[in-house]
Order: sequence, then C-alpha cells, then structure tokens
Amino acid sequence: MPLLAGVDQVEAVHKPSLDPLFRLLASDLECVNRLILERMQSPVALIPQLAGHIIASGGKRLRPMLTLGCARLCGYEGTRHVALAAAVEFIHTATLLHDDVVDASDLRRGRDTANALWGNKPAILVGDFLFSRSFELMVADGSLRILEILSRASSVIAEGEVLQLMTQNNLQTTEASYLEVIQAKTAELFAAASRIGAVVAERPPREETALDRFGRDLGTAFQLVDDMLDFSARQTELGKCIGDDFRDGKVTLPILLSFSRGNDEERIFWRRALEEMDQRAGDLDRAIALMAQHGALAETLVRARGYAANAIDALSVFPDGPERRALVEAASFATERTV
Amino acid sequence: MPLLAGVDQVEAVHKPSLDPLFRLLASDLECVNRLILERMQSPVALIPQLAGHIIASGGKRLRPMLTLGCARLCGYEGTRHVALAAAVEFIHTATLLHDDVVDASDLRRGRDTANALWGNKPAILVGDFLFSRSFELMVADGSLRILEILSRASSVIAEGEVLQLMTQNNLQTTEASYLEVIQAKTAELFAAASRIGAVVAERPPREETALDRFGRDLGTAFQLVDDMLDFSARQTELGKCIGDDFRDGKVTLPILLSFSRGNDEERIFWRRALEEMDQRAGDLDRAIALMAQHGALAETLVRARGYAANAIDALSVFPDGPERRALVEAASFATERTV
Repeated sequence: MPLLAGVDQVEAVHKPSLDPLFRLLASDLECVNRLILERMQSPVALIPQLAGHIIASGGKRLRPMLTLGCARLCGYEGTRHVALAAAVEFIHTATLLHDDVVDASDLRRGRDTANALWGNKPAILVGDFLFSRSFELMVADGSLRILEILSRASSVIAEGEVLQLMTQNNLQTTEASYLEVIQAKTAELFAAASRIGAVVAERPPREETALDRFGRDLGTAFQLVDDMLDFSARQTELGKCIGDDFRDGKVTLPILLSFSRGNDEERIFWRRALEEMDQRAGDLDRAIALMAQHGALAETLVRARGYAANAIDALSVFPDGPERRALVEAASFATERTV
Repeated sequence: MPLLAGVDQVEAVHKPSLDPLFRLLASDLECVNRLILERMQSPVALIPQLAGHIIASGGKRLRPMLTLGCARLCGYEGTRHVALAAAVEFIHTATLLHDDVVDASDLRRGRDTANALWGNKPAILVGDFLFSRSFELMVADGSLRILEILSRASSVIAEGEVLQLMTQNNLQTTEASYLEVIQAKTAELFAAASRIGAVVAERPPREETALDRFGRDLGTAFQLVDDMLDFSARQTELGKCIGDDFRDGKVTLPILLSFSRGNDEERIFWRRALEEMDQRAGDLDRAIALMAQHGALAETLVRARGYAANAIDALSVFPDGPERRALVEAASFATERTV
C-alpha cells in the first residue's frame, strides 16, 4: 500500500509531534483522565464498561489537550480547566459512539468498536449518557459563557453529521459543502475546546477569537489529513481499515478532486463505486491509483498545510514560550502525521 | 381485544381529562409550540423535516405542560417558563427518537416513526441535535440551578434506558429493578419538569420538593399505565401496536406479576416467549389471558393509582385554585386513560 502516494516526502530533521504538549500538560492530563474515569461511573455496570472501552482505547486526547494548553497559554493557574477538558472529551466520545453506530464501523484505533462488541443499542444510550455527563461537568463548573460555547458547538456538530449524510453517495457535492461538513463535525469542537481556554483564564475577546481561529483551522487541517489518510495510512498504525470512507460512500476532498479532474470513463467508475455503491474487487486500488495520477492526496495535504499555517498564525497574539511552541508543534503534527 | 381485561371498569360521572390543564395553559402552550418550531430550524433541511415529524405527531405535551402548570401554580407571572418547557420537550423528543431506534419501532402515535421513514442514522443524529438545542435554550435562560436539574435528569434517563436493556429478556428481573427502570427513564423527567416550575418562580425548597414528588409519582403512575395499556389499549387509539413490549421481550410489571403468580407450565411459556424470544402465533393472546387470570393488569393499575394518589397528595402544600385542580385532574387522567 503506497504511503502518501503522490505526496513529496519531507525529510525533516525534526519530525513534529504531540510530545512537547503532552510533557507540558502531563500532570493536568492525569487529572483529566482521573476525572473522566470518576465521572463515567454509574450503578449500571454496562455504562462504565462500554465507556471505559472507548475512552481507554488510545485516543490522542487532542481536544482536552487544546483546552488545557490554551488555558496555560493564557496564563491560567487554577484547576477549572481540568473539568472543562473532561467535558470536551465526553462530548467527543459521545459523538464517536454515535458515529460508529451510524457508519456501522467495526474497528476504531485498531480495536473493536463499542457497537461491534455490545451492539448498537447500548452504544447509542451510553453516548447519550456521556453527553449528559459532559453538561453536568460544565454546570458544576458554573460558567454560563462556557456552557453557551459548548452547547452551541454540540448543535453544530450534530448539524454537520446530518449534512455529512446528505453528501454521502453524492458526487455533486461541492468543495464548499465538503468544507462545511468538516468544519461543523470536527473543527467546531476544536475551536470551542481552544476558546474556552481563554474564557476560563478571563482573557479579553481578542485572545478568545484568536484561540477560536487557531482551533478551527487546526481542526479543519486535522480532518483534511484524516480524509487523506483514509487512502494512504499504514493500516496497523491508523488502527482502522484503509478505505473505510470509500466503502461507506463518503465523498471527501481526495475523491472530489479526483472526480473533477478525471475523464468521463473515470467518472463512470466513481459513480458506480460511490453513488450506486456497486463496489468490486480492485476498486479501492483503482481509486488510490487515480488519486495519485491526479495529485488528489498531495493537493489535500497542501490545503491542510494552509489551514495549519493559519492556525499557527492565529497564535501570534500570544507571547513566545513553551506553551505556544508546543501548540505550534501540535499544529505541524496535524499535517505531518501518518497515523 | 379485551379492554383492561380483569380491571373493574369505573363508571365515573366525570371522566378525568387533560382538558382543564390545556385550557388553563392554552396561550402559554402556543408560545411553547412556536418556540419549538423556531428552535428546531437548521440550514440542514432534513433536521426540521425529521424533527417536525415527531414533534407535530400529536404527543400530549404532558411534560412541558407540567413545567408551565407548576410555574403557574407557584404564582409565576413571567415568560421564562415557556423556553424551559420547550427545553423539556426537546429532551423528551430526543429520547423518543433514540428509543425508537433502539427498539426498532415502526409506529408511534399511529404514525410511521422517524427511523422507519428516514432510517436510523438521521434519527440518531437529529436526536443529538435536539438534545443540544435543549441545552442552548436552558443556557439562554441563564439559571444554573435549572441546568443542574435538567442535566442530571438527562443522565438518569440514559442510565434508565441502559438498565432497561439489562432487564430485557430477563425474567429474573425484580419488581424493584423494574421500578428503578421506569423511575429513571420516565419519572425523572416528570419530576424535573415539575420542579423547575418552582425554581423559575423562586419558591422555597419545600415547594420545589413537593413538585418533584408530584412529578415523580405522576411519572411512575403514567409509565405503569403505559405498560398496562401495551396489553389492553385499543390499538387505533394508542396509535401503536398492542403487544409491542411483549414482542420486544420487555419485562414489565404485568409480566413480572403473571410470571411470579403462574405455575411451572406457565413459566415455561413466559421463558420461551420472552427469554428465548421464540414467539409463536397466539402467544400474545395467551399472555393477555394469563394476565387476566392472575389479575396482573388490575394489580398494575392499583399500583399506578397509588402513585397517582401520592402525586395528588404532594400538591396539598399549595392553595386550592384552578391550577391545582387542573394538575390534580391530570394525575387522575394518568391512571384512568385508555390511550
């Protein structure tokens, strides 16, 4: 399987990673993990079992790290950011549980999904439970402003997920619609998670807006790369099957670019595979070959790097320091990652 | 199909109804309906379509009426109760959408369910959207106390729904577990909807507690009757199929009572039909006949009437007047209804 076929391999001396951010936030993150474990408990035993499975399954904790890191960047020295980061992760986990049911996914991060192990019913209901718990955490924190930001983000995420259903199997989808979907389903929570770092630190609107911009562009870059990796990642590393989106008939940017740059015969192929969902042996390989031929993955990565660069720019209102450097590196990681 | 087989028919001169409460709250309820229509809008067209289908499908609006009625009972003269009643209805509607997916139901109130019409995916996601919208409404209202009550209620509802899955197909379920399920999945929201009427009116804890008790016991009575009507309602009136719970293998009180009062041969029947889910032609009729023989529906109704009487008692801390009389009649309606 070609790795980033058609993409120039950057032989950077220093490969950007999330490690500096992890190191900086290690003790905060430990508190977040402890609180998550505590707040997912319930006398109904299946709830912590199922929630524990997905929460412990090796996610990057990127969204709660944004809340923690942005709060620190804003000079926050209290402890409220811990509960807020946990609330953000609960919202994210709830959407993952529902996504996996909606997509009928069997694998996530290399492990069986909750719906594969326990069925759709508890996966839906435990998602609802975690979503409610998230609001309980925010209410206990007591900031109406933060509740406003995160309840709004939750609505937008759900709208994005429904919009994604509408674009599925539809090659008439415009790039603008595709962007709308990923900005709603992914970037909105990145933006909210980052913005509340400034709110909890009681920083002026200018810094709130900068962090919103940072999170939004980072989230967009992150999702663009996710959609690219679906056709190029090393299977074992990404922990999901290559071509999942293709098999679901999801119309992502690499497909839109290949479709619009393709000839009539290629378009017949794309329509058969993604609109009529008549997929045959060798179709995924052909899709990947067409993407290489039209530079669709490379172009997707270029766009992602553009968003990541904007995200980094947005941080310029903050003074240089270990927090800013770690967040900048996280933004670079978002587009240079292979998993 | 026998109507309330085994239950003494009460030939009351005055049949209790929700009409007095409806009349009292008519203009408030119109504001609630308008706000619901407004707040279920989204640029994603499928969202108002699907949400409109379930919201307009002739539900009794019982929960928002509790919020409105209890606020009025507490002498509240403002307008905040309208948005809070809409928030309560959105929570309820979100849980209905997810319930119908979980139960794979085709009919609700005599109409196709959203999942039957549009599939499970949008039904799950629009449920998430309405749930988020509910919190947006509460945040706009601005009471952390009310957010606390309703976010807690949402968690408890989800716990109750998961617990219900555990009791499904399980005739070892105790009456205590059954009660725990219905108090979590149904009575909790009735309690919260009623309680916030006192909170919005800024009444003392004694009245808050009284309304919580009222809602909780009313909700328990309501669900007991619902579970009884699944074996006795007139199909067209209830708008769902008789025996839905039976076909789902749900272990409700009429079944628990018949099972525990039955002989060995009957227990073999119940185990085959509900645990092994090996259901045959005539099984539902036999189940209903056994319930009549053991007085299980009558006993369920007696319990429901006990809860309804306690609900009515809880209102005694409030002065007599049209609001209290309408709420008392609503509690009587809960157990005397046939739909």
